[in-house]
Amino acid sequence: MHTREACLQADQQDPLAPLKAQFDIPAGVLYMDGNSLGVLPKAAVARSAQVIQQEWGQGLIRSWNDASWFELPSRLGDKLGRLIGAGTGQVVVTDTTSLNLFKSLAAAIRIQQQAAPQRKIIVSERDNFPTDLYMIQGMIDLLQQGYEMRLVDEDLSLEQALDDSVAVLLLSHVNYRTGHMYDMADVTAQAHARGALTIWDLAHAAGAVPVDLTGANADFAVGCTYKYLNGGPGAPAFIWVAPRHTDHFWQPLSGWWGHQRPFDMAVNYEPAGGIRRYLCGTQPIVSLSLVECGLDISLQADMNEVRRKSLALTDLFIALVESRCARHPLTLVTPREHAHRGSHVSLRHPHGYAVMQALIARGVIGDYREPEVLRFGFTPLYFGYTDVWDAVEILTDVLDSEIWKQPEFSRRGAVT
Amino acid sequence: MHTREACLQADQQDPLAPLKAQFDIPAGVLYMDGNSLGVLPKAAVARSAQVIQQEWGQGLIRSWNDASWFELPSRLGDKLGRLIGAGTGQVVVTDTTSLNLFKSLAAAIRIQQQAAPQRKIIVSERDNFPTDLYMIQGMIDLLQQGYEMRLVDEDLSLEQALDDSVAVLLLSHVNYRTGHMYDMADVTAQAHARGALTIWDLAHAAGAVPVDLTGANADFAVGCTYKYLNGGPGAPAFIWVAPRHTDHFWQPLSGWWGHQRPFDMAVNYEPAGGIRRYLCGTQPIVSLSLVECGLDISLQADMNEVRRKSLALTDLFIALVESRCARHPLTLVTPREHAHRGSHVSLRHPHGYAVMQALIARGVIGDYREPEVLRFGFTPLYFGYTDVWDAVEILTDVLDSEIWKQPEFSRRGAVT
Repeated sequence: MHTREACLQADQQDPLAPLKAQFDIPAGVLYMDGNSLGVLPKAAVARSAQVIQQEWGQGLIRSWNDASWFELPSRLGDKLGRLIGAGTGQVVVTDTTSLNLFKSLAAAIRIQQQAAPQRKIIVSERDNFPTDLYMIQGMIDLLQQGYEMRLVDEDLSLEQALDDSVAVLLLSHVNYRTGHMYDMADVTAQAHARGALTIWDLAHAAGAVPVDLTGANADFAVGCTYKYLNGGPGAPAFIWVAPRHTDHFWQPLSGWWGHQRPFDMAVNYEPAGGIRRYLCGTQPIVSLSLVECGLDISLQADMNEVRRKSLALTDLFIALVESRCARHPLTLVTPREHAHRGSHVSLRHPHGYAVMQALIARGVIGDYREPEVLRFGFTPLYFGYTDVWDAVEILTDVLDSEIWKQPEFSRRGAVT
Repeated sequence: MHTREACLQADQQDPLAPLKAQFDIPAGVLYMDGNSLGVLPKAAVARSAQVIQQEWGQGLIRSWNDASWFELPSRLGDKLGRLIGAGTGQVVVTDTTSLNLFKSLAAAIRIQQQAAPQRKIIVSERDNFPTDLYMIQGMIDLLQQGYEMRLVDEDLSLEQALDDSVAVLLLSHVNYRTGHMYDMADVTAQAHARGALTIWDLAHAAGAVPVDLTGANADFAVGCTYKYLNGGPGAPAFIWVAPRHTDHFWQPLSGWWGHQRPFDMAVNYEPAGGIRRYLCGTQPIVSLSLVECGLDISLQADMNEVRRKSLALTDLFIALVESRCARHPLTLVTPREHAHRGSHVSLRHPHGYAVMQALIARGVIGDYREPEVLRFGFTPLYFGYTDVWDAVEILTDVLDSEIWKQPEFSRRGAVT
């Protein structure tokens, strides 16, 4: 697509294009940060009024039964499961990604303590999203049982890292910074062949790329709902556990929501059968309820069509940037190979922070990640080919005009 | 007050009465379950529209800065702290009560591992809210370091339980079932004298009774915002840590929100100074934001006036029930002594479940807790003396007419 007209035509032929009307997107904004916070489903406005004014305001305590609040983590989990290759009753939407990582890591460690207690290494990637590494560190520090974290990076390949001391491999399916995607089935098979269990962080994958946890024979997965699933800022996360593991282990964040009979008020914890034992405390019902609005839109889309369009959009973006901005010091960080690309594109620029601020001021909202990385997210449910064209126009202009050199664009906010 | 007219007069003279207008309470309902789920502040409707339609819908990712989302846990924590005797910067609103218990228990255990490693007992109460006991059990099971739970009950007094093997004493300030309240300063002093640290669960205390964590020299406290603080269903909980302990320990749920510089994306966890190290993952911003509406009403009330009215309401309720329902098999579970009474009253009845269902059908909404306990909560911000009178009228009628014997009232729902 070498012209804006070709992009317009591609949008007209796009079977996903009608879904955009179900979102409320600010006028004058090209939103390329759906990989950080998804946009507002229009249905969320009415749903929030229902939850707040009717269910809370009028129903009050009765809504735990009458509005099925207590069942929400499972009901939403079942819907979400259809997007990631999980069966019914295998996913709950609850707590945060970090906390769900802690639960799955504890479970994986416990399984290995029985199967192969000499395995004391938890492998992850130096470039993984930091909270994943921090949760591993917190677990190791708490247990004081000789566990260690081993990080894969330029100096150590995954294959080298997976020796027979490894208990758990914890990876992000799609890397938050680079957009690199692992072959989940292949990596899981490698890990299993070497005796390690896998935990997949799907934060940048769920709703963005096809995921088949069952087909990949994965062990554990966690992820968030507020990026490509458009669940709302900080909306509760999810956790999936392979059925072969679910009932093995009593996860340590064993609050009353995970009890077999929570309202018996028994003194002793007795985990619920199945994935509900991964629940802990009372969930934020307003935020949790709104997750459904985004899920319901994702479920209208064919995931293969989403993937096809995502690759077409990112291909187009890369091609246009490389032809239009060739004289600027931009480096493509994201893999060119489709098999290893998620749904965002990262470009490195020596003044990446200021360039991104200048773009945001012009209505192209991406984000910046250390070091020097401009991130552009592509959510096929609401982002189109013409949007890509227009965004590159503005990027080209920001770079050609050197407007990003204005001092206001270098001032750092608290959160970037 | 022996007449409804006297109750009406007391309401007219009640300095807290005007606050009721700030809540949306369903018509025809006498709401006596604010100790389980508080009512809807009217301001929450406009606030939710602002957060959902403006901050999320229009501001999108920019709202982390522009709408100060990232600061919410601290800003709300500072407001909440004023209700529980905590200083500025000592409280965050985050996660769930169960999770905050886990963090504080881990911290308390770690402090004792350095100070008195032979102390391996965690003391609580058999009648504590079950999630408190379940979180202790989860921690013990995870650590596998010889820790044990010891429960105070009819056979074992607190004084007997606190020997020199005790590391931590974890108690609810006000008991969820009985409404019994501990003297926090006295019990804390006892625990300290015997070398134990204290964790107070304020779920049924915060906003309901005067709490002075600083004055009581407490060590850790957690609690919820959705009961007497009217924060909304499942709204995020809070945690307070005494400043002398805060920077000692790296709590194990060490997610990126608790990092000193979360946006540096550093590989190694480095806890933030102060209470923010007790944060973990990204918070549910819609539910979190609404907490402020309830807090803002509580902060308009003089806590001593709240306490005075709470005792007057519960005294009146007990007196009326005992005079009007004397021929029915009701037993008062809640302490008569003011010093040991929270803000709810529990009555035992052999058919408590059915009686409560019949009451709810008549618009008197309390709740039922095993075994056989009818719970009636009194939130002085919106419940009045005439409400007490009318509720006892209906209770008397339900018992005298034996309407609770109708089979529909014995059928159990999923959640009671």
